[in-house]
Amino acid sequence: MSDLEFMQQAIACAHSVEGHTSPRPAVGAVIVRDNRVIGRGATSPPYGPHAEIHALNEAGATAASGADLYTTLEPCCIAIHTPPCTKAIIAAGIRRVIIGALDPNPRVSGRGVAQLREAGINVVTGIAQQETSALIRPFATYITQGRPYVTAKWAMTLDGKLATHTGDAHWISGPAARTWVHQLRDRVDAIMIGAGTAHADNPLLTVRLTEAQRVHKRTPRQDPLRIVLSSYGKLGSHLHLLQEQLAPGTCVMVSETSSLQQREDLRQRGVQVIEVPANKTGQVDLVAALNILAQKGIMHLLLEGGSNLLGTAFGHNLIDHVAAFIAPKLIGGAGSPSPIGGSGLAVMQHALRLQGVSIQTIDEDLLIEGEIPHIVEQTTTGN
Amino acid sequence: MSDLEFMQQAIACAHSVEGHTSPRPAVGAVIVRDNRVIGRGATSPPYGPHAEIHALNEAGATAASGADLYTTLEPCCIAIHTPPCTKAIIAAGIRRVIIGALDPNPRVSGRGVAQLREAGINVVTGIAQQETSALIRPFATYITQGRPYVTAKWAMTLDGKLATHTGDAHWISGPAARTWVHQLRDRVDAIMIGAGTAHADNPLLTVRLTEAQRVHKRTPRQDPLRIVLSSYGKLGSHLHLLQEQLAPGTCVMVSETSSLQQREDLRQRGVQVIEVPANKTGQVDLVAALNILAQKGIMHLLLEGGSNLLGTAFGHNLIDHVAAFIAPKLIGGAGSPSPIGGSGLAVMQHALRLQGVSIQTIDEDLLIEGEIPHIVEQTTTGN
Repeated sequence: MSDLEFMQQAIACAHSVEGHTSPRPAVGAVIVRDNRVIGRGATSPPYGPHAEIHALNEAGATAASGADLYTTLEPCCIAIHTPPCTKAIIAAGIRRVIIGALDPNPRVSGRGVAQLREAGINVVTGIAQQETSALIRPFATYITQGRPYVTAKWAMTLDGKLATHTGDAHWISGPAARTWVHQLRDRVDAIMIGAGTAHADNPLLTVRLTEAQRVHKRTPRQDPLRIVLSSYGKLGSHLHLLQEQLAPGTCVMVSETSSLQQREDLRQRGVQVIEVPANKTGQVDLVAALNILAQKGIMHLLLEGGSNLLGTAFGHNLIDHVAAFIAPKLIGGAGSPSPIGGSGLAVMQHALRLQGVSIQTIDEDLLIEGEIPHIVEQTTTGN
Repeated sequence: MSDLEFMQQAIACAHSVEGHTSPRPAVGAVIVRDNRVIGRGATSPPYGPHAEIHALNEAGATAASGADLYTTLEPCCIAIHTPPCTKAIIAAGIRRVIIGALDPNPRVSGRGVAQLREAGINVVTGIAQQETSALIRPFATYITQGRPYVTAKWAMTLDGKLATHTGDAHWISGPAARTWVHQLRDRVDAIMIGAGTAHADNPLLTVRLTEAQRVHKRTPRQDPLRIVLSSYGKLGSHLHLLQEQLAPGTCVMVSETSSLQQREDLRQRGVQVIEVPANKTGQVDLVAALNILAQKGIMHLLLEGGSNLLGTAFGHNLIDHVAAFIAPKLIGGAGSPSPIGGSGLAVMQHALRLQGVSIQTIDEDLLIEGEIPHIVEQTTTGN
């Protein structure tokens, strides 16, 4: 097998823990000896051993000595919550290290490679660059921008509508597309909606997948945090998200200027209430909200609408990834909302162009995904 | 070669005249003898010989006798503008006739086949059913519903916008997509826009293709009729469509209640003015407008927007075919128009679902096409 094929196996390991490692990146590693995988590993839940350590342990000390290590991300070289992996790799007598992406943290990027090379290990970088970089996008945004990586997901009709003019959105896309969305939810740390969508759709925001529908088998875990951005007034007490079963996993972000009684009512229900600085219009400042979520270890945030929330996120240039379903049907209506509201851009030539666009059909629906590149303003500096 | 392969050659003949035969269907025919094509034909411009006659003439009387005829549409059996083709086929001594689609005109459908069979000719029907039926869709709508077949074309951003909130739509899709639109224009009889789009975009509505971009070589011809539906007020005299070069091929449809002075001004410019009954709100009645266009031999009408015109057409269930470009970019804006305005449907489950959906990428843009099935209310009855 080639380096690329072994790296694919390391990538598969990483995918198996995607969305379950925050605020650490999902990493996969395999140890190869005599053209055969003798150890595999993936990042543990936060603050546990890294992928490389698991793979080394599985291979065992005798077999690992003189073997090759494939890892989707550059091994860490400094002790944060765990001892540096570079040290363990050197100690294990690994002969060759094959790396996908370099560490996106500018403080350490390239230093892991340097340490390994100084120890006489043959290091190859940039294998399966695209896939390994994609795996760490949430972490890269988190570490360089101090906010969660934001995926905006919507389903619209072919004439660009999120719902009818009466607000009816059940259902735009088909069952297979909705299952895909649950799989997406299973890969994120939190799901956010606006208060309008909370009332219009009254969603559960849970991950509802059968074992067969789960892409990667794993032990059940808590669903992603459910967040309602409550800029206006009070949330209806009938909402599913505020009932006994869901309330403990629900968070309502309110503006500092909102009613104390409302916050107290929500807390009584077991809902987490987070106060966020208000913007000029007295509403929750979305940039501030995202910074608070990052401090809580939310690395990948899924925006599930509606039009106002997506418009605000778009207006602040906060959308990193788009997953847009298009259903081949027409609903019409000048008053039917389209996916991204807000004020929008004035000049078509300034439109934000998606990069790395992928298109797939999921039953009768079309799924278009792509990245929105941002100029990264680094919040940390190299040393 | 198989029957299907020869039929594909007949289909290619038909495509070469698509949009240039109204109000007659575009038909292609080939004569085959000893597994070799010895004659080809396509429908002449209106009221000239049909495809079968051209193919028979090219083959010559001696070779045609005992040969096979492939035709995309059932040969006509009654004299309308030309003698019936069935008569010519029988007289030529054709041995076997292979037919794509049956005549959609309920008055004659199946009668051509019956006449040929009565004359002892072996007749096969339904070869390449899907493609041959697609070729005659405009004619079928025209003959059974007394109105043009309506293609609605739009280009939108991935967030469902036709333009920015300021009305800027230049350009949503890329050059290759725009070339495709010119090729589409070259296959229709008329292009209609609303007065709002006439003012916002000030388009030419001409077919602008280099010889290399033309799918089928043919002699230059007049562009499709350019139609502006002028429901409100006066059209600006600066519009390209009203200038000396374009005015003779431009038609403005006005409500009966519109100003006489406006009509006179337009006529002075060489523009064709058509008065249409007004609907309840005093605007042009679109159903009446389409009936008038059908009477003028317009068999395939292309709607190029904007949102209001498409909303009206959608509201009257007049859209037969959709060609929607989606550009992988975001523009945002609650005030940015989306493709189909009007009042729209209230219930998502009532959405009109496209059939026969095709998806293709054209450079960076995505083109989704499909048919909207209608319950055909026949305006003619069988005898």
